[in-house]
Amino acid sequence: MFGKHGMNSQFAVLGSAKDYMLASSAVFRRQQFLIRSLGGYTDQSQQKIMQQTKALGGTALEADAEHILRAITPPLDRSKHKGQAGMVAVIGGCREYTGAPYFAAISALKIGADLSHVFCTKDAAPVIKSYSPELIVHPVLEESYSVRDEDKQSISMKVFAEVVKWMERFDCLVVGPGLGRDPFLLVCVSEIMKHARKCNVPIVVDGQSMWFGLSADSTSGLFQDGLFLVTNNLDLVSGYSLAVLTPNVNEYKRLVEKVLNCEVKEQDAYEQLLSLAKGIGGVTILRKGKSDLISDGETVKSVSIYGSPRRCGGQGDILSGRQVSIYDFLLKHVAVFVSWARERLSAAEGDSSISKINPTILGSIAGSALLRKAASLAFQNKKRSTLTGDIIEHLGRSLEDICPAS
Amino acid sequence: MFGKHGMNSQFAVLGSAKDYMLASSAVFRRQQFLIRSLGGYTDQSQQKIMQQTKALGGTALEADAEHILRAITPPLDRSKHKGQAGMVAVIGGCREYTGAPYFAAISALKIGADLSHVFCTKDAAPVIKSYSPELIVHPVLEESYSVRDEDKQSISMKVFAEVVKWMERFDCLVVGPGLGRDPFLLVCVSEIMKHARKCNVPIVVDGQSMWFGLSADSTSGLFQDGLFLVTNNLDLVSGYSLAVLTPNVNEYKRLVEKVLNCEVKEQDAYEQLLSLAKGIGGVTILRKGKSDLISDGETVKSVSIYGSPRRCGGQGDILSGRQVSIYDFLLKHVAVFVSWARERLSAAEGDSSISKINPTILGSIAGSALLRKAASLAFQNKKRSTLTGDIIEHLGRSLEDICPAS
Repeated sequence: MFGKHGMNSQFAVLGSAKDYMLASSAVFRRQQFLIRSLGGYTDQSQQKIMQQTKALGGTALEADAEHILRAITPPLDRSKHKGQAGMVAVIGGCREYTGAPYFAAISALKIGADLSHVFCTKDAAPVIKSYSPELIVHPVLEESYSVRDEDKQSISMKVFAEVVKWMERFDCLVVGPGLGRDPFLLVCVSEIMKHARKCNVPIVVDGQSMWFGLSADSTSGLFQDGLFLVTNNLDLVSGYSLAVLTPNVNEYKRLVEKVLNCEVKEQDAYEQLLSLAKGIGGVTILRKGKSDLISDGETVKSVSIYGSPRRCGGQGDILSGRQVSIYDFLLKHVAVFVSWARERLSAAEGDSSISKINPTILGSIAGSALLRKAASLAFQNKKRSTLTGDIIEHLGRSLEDICPAS
Repeated sequence: MFGKHGMNSQFAVLGSAKDYMLASSAVFRRQQFLIRSLGGYTDQSQQKIMQQTKALGGTALEADAEHILRAITPPLDRSKHKGQAGMVAVIGGCREYTGAPYFAAISALKIGADLSHVFCTKDAAPVIKSYSPELIVHPVLEESYSVRDEDKQSISMKVFAEVVKWMERFDCLVVGPGLGRDPFLLVCVSEIMKHARKCNVPIVVDGQSMWFGLSADSTSGLFQDGLFLVTNNLDLVSGYSLAVLTPNVNEYKRLVEKVLNCEVKEQDAYEQLLSLAKGIGGVTILRKGKSDLISDGETVKSVSIYGSPRRCGGQGDILSGRQVSIYDFLLKHVAVFVSWARERLSAAEGDSSISKINPTILGSIAGSALLRKAASLAFQNKKRSTLTGDIIEHLGRSLEDICPAS
């Protein structure tokens, strides 16, 4: 029932793929367009792309990002009811960090998701709620300081149950923003990720504590029984084709060191990213930079629009200088776009040329392009004083410019 | 003293209806206009309307919503003192949900209510207060987790007393937004609703937990003595002509199943709505959709303005796509308009043709029309990134466009 990229028949709401395509030439054209936009991401042409990539000395093919964005963004439709344009959940936010999960959650709404949930610690909830009444904030996570050792097992089960009861309603999960490094909290979140994976829910993973696990120091004495010991959280996503990682510079460096046992080599950027994604079992990695690079271990795509050198002085400064916050909310775009891409592709499940398209690649390209445009617009307005919130305020107009709602 | 729709002489502040009408031809014209706006909602013509409705294969009559809105919105008058343009109370907001009661309360102020109170749990109050200093927020409700079993009775009495002491000042109550599903909390709120009904205060009811009661599971062990056991909260509103229900798609489906023992049939939408409202003893039901349908079991009205297909791509998405939040604050409009309609009609209590007009129908039509216009304007500005707050920001201008303040 589940295809390569975890699509199942529940998405094929309009009947069999062929019927649907025959019935709707517009949809058919859109799907064909998707293939062309990706430079022919099909069985037959895959090898050719890889050859081209190699022939260019590792130069990735620039994705037709705006077209992909248009192709996967669902048309507005009055017959839809709540949740059909996407329901996303952010697992993040602790006593110390509350901004990142807010940015992640609100940016999803700003591009048109229907509902955005945040699951955070009890301390973080009132603060995140107060940023916006538009979010649904669940104060369910617990940190070590508020939990006695003997209660850990029962509390972790309770936390798990509180989140998991919502799982089937979510189109995508964002795990990590503002989660901190509390071992108990991370262990609880690991269990939630395992469940999401079982349910085939796409996961956008943020935060190095989620990828590198906990050091022996931080866990010793806390989980002596080893019941919950997480030695390597990369296992949580490894081999899961619906996972997207969006590392910042340092996190990327650590990933390369850990998985490929070498240093980051800028001259081999494409091939190294390809190897890294393959090394983590085909997850999608979005590497932010002057050009954003995206790979799932089979292909590498780049997104360079809205990044001319002239504008990019400031934009680049924003994109790299304020990397963490940009990444934090970028994640959310990717999550929404991944869920949209998945729904769009699922209608053509029976078509082998289309079912090979990876929705996490499409979603990452769309998210990257939109963020670059919004950051560019925000910088034009606010210059040096551009904050994350300013970029979020430009998401709507950016999307409207590329893909008008009506 | 109490008329069919619960109007009593306290509203006839300007003397007997006939004196008043003779003294003020403007008011008389306005009342006559009300009757015409409703397509002649009088004793004589009621049967004719129903015949017309049936003759059209169940097609409801489109209400002259803008005219009704103008007819019931009170003129601004500097001689009035605070509270005379409406004082509304929202009973809702718990640890988990704070946005919905905020939207309900602030939107009442945005269309001109004098004061807007929120009665919520202690956890929710600081958050709701932080959204806006304009609201009066009472942290008086309690959830099970903070109450010992042996204290439940005394605490529920205390909660009841805290809310009820304000009751006579309220022109309308909105019960349910963000109330959650805590059994103890719902039981306390049920008692408040019973009191509001005794006091003839209109109630706009939101949230399926308020309509369908608590399952045996959720109450067993909590109220073993059966003292507070609520088996069916529909009883709380059934037969109360001053109650308005505004179900979303799923809630409407459940209501139809429960009350009419059948599935929702779109081809019989009008008649089914009529039967449903009649089945709940003549409450008013506002069913949101491409056209909003409103019935009190005696008539069905539709509101379709500001819903052209062209604009409605987004508007439809907003109105149906983000249903809960839209309904949550729509409720509040309805509440304010119901209280205004009631006041407007009460002046003509002695006139049989006017006293038959149901203020909850008028209020629902006006609230529906205003929301549709505000959503339409917000969408023109914000497109896909339109959030509930954006629509609220357009309420004032929408009302001003339809019914200028001066």
